[in-house]
Amino acid sequence: MAKSDYCSIQIHSVPGIPLIHKGDDLCQLVLDAIKANKLILKDGSILVVAQKVISKAEDRFVNLKTIKPTALAIEYSLLTDKDPRLVELILQESKSVIRHRKGVLIVENNQGLIMANAGIDHSNVEQDSENDWVLLLPENPDRSASSIHQKLLAKTGCKIGVIINDSIGRAWRNGTIGTAIGVAGLSSILDLRGQDDLFGNQLRVSEEAIADELASAASLIQGQADEGLPVVLIEGYPINLREIPASELIRPEENDLFR
Amino acid sequence: MAKSDYCSIQIHSVPGIPLIHKGDDLCQLVLDAIKANKLILKDGSILVVAQKVISKAEDRFVNLKTIKPTALAIEYSLLTDKDPRLVELILQESKSVIRHRKGVLIVENNQGLIMANAGIDHSNVEQDSENDWVLLLPENPDRSASSIHQKLLAKTGCKIGVIINDSIGRAWRNGTIGTAIGVAGLSSILDLRGQDDLFGNQLRVSEEAIADELASAASLIQGQADEGLPVVLIEGYPINLREIPASELIRPEENDLFR
Repeated sequence: MAKSDYCSIQIHSVPGIPLIHKGDDLCQLVLDAIKANKLILKDGSILVVAQKVISKAEDRFVNLKTIKPTALAIEYSLLTDKDPRLVELILQESKSVIRHRKGVLIVENNQGLIMANAGIDHSNVEQDSENDWVLLLPENPDRSASSIHQKLLAKTGCKIGVIINDSIGRAWRNGTIGTAIGVAGLSSILDLRGQDDLFGNQLRVSEEAIADELASAASLIQGQADEGLPVVLIEGYPINLREIPASELIRPEENDLFR
Repeated sequence: MAKSDYCSIQIHSVPGIPLIHKGDDLCQLVLDAIKANKLILKDGSILVVAQKVISKAEDRFVNLKTIKPTALAIEYSLLTDKDPRLVELILQESKSVIRHRKGVLIVENNQGLIMANAGIDHSNVEQDSENDWVLLLPENPDRSASSIHQKLLAKTGCKIGVIINDSIGRAWRNGTIGTAIGVAGLSSILDLRGQDDLFGNQLRVSEEAIADELASAASLIQGQADEGLPVVLIEGYPINLREIPASELIRPEENDLFR
């Protein structure tokens, strides 16, 4: 019989975040929008922030017109039908190429994330007539999350969980899902090892990737098109104070059977 | 500038679902618990139901003591250090073995899901002294979801989205996440192809696996240990009336680079 009391999680959109430009004080803009929407941050609140606005604030723009592809990039560009300058950037941002075919270039990026095109984005990037801008992932998303967590603590006095998410494809399944690429102020993984099930048997599943689940929940409200809702506030989920960064969500190569 | 209004999604636990046995009227038990918790179902409500209670109601129990392993099952049991009777069941429930090593047997199950042990569960299954029970996945989770959707429509008059979720491991990443294995009454995939981004450019990401994101959101509240919260109610997420089952979330083999 269920022994738990009723509980609920609320996922709030935070409209009114302006377009982000390099050097913007993202924390202050988020706090202003939180206030304008009459939302309240407190200990245990979780902010999920889309990768693209972190990358913009950190000036991770690159003008493709400045990129000279190497011979290797040209080779992969022919194999994948992709712009050789973009391929050059993808290779610079990556440790290794995992799979490629026409239209597809899946890499392990420099943080260990396995994803298409090293997460380099041409959409939601403002263009001008003379340049051809793309946006790289944050250099170190856990560090970016930690910086936001610290700034929010300084500005509000509250310990707020911060997740940086991106929409990432998966093996075996269609569609992308929101995935945690940076985490601070909460545990990315809920460790259930040693816990019993309803009948005192050992659990089949022993680790739950809660930061990824929170990142997916937020993605439902962020939208990926022109909604412009990069920040989501999650309330009601009990944060585990033992901090585990998003890098711990990456399975070490020696334990991974799918590279 | 963001043009959207404030919105929110609520994820409610539904305590008080009793332990489920074969043949139980799961729909009525869920409706009773919804009422007891003073929650209200309406058009567009989404119920996420853990696979294990569907399997129990559908009597997907198997007593390992009745299973005679074939030579192939014995071979894989030696390669994986698993009970040969369990391996026999896993093979019966699967189209093919995808990867194996000591302690690990990853298969494509008969529905096309790629997962460890064909999702067969020894935890959260009531045992007795004479038998050794395990629980298979529902035979056809989309059909199970559709059946619940239809019964709820008959009992309440409301069109309620139904997702059956399970905690499933991934390539490349540690930990499991809630994943949609059966869907009815909503679209599993949000198709963004042809939509523009904030600046009128084409979107990088074109299909969002929203049923998986909803399944993950629900998993945050379901717990996997002894919480006994198999049913979650999600309100505030706009359901797309074009129904797309969970089977459409499975990437066809010819498009999958990671088998």
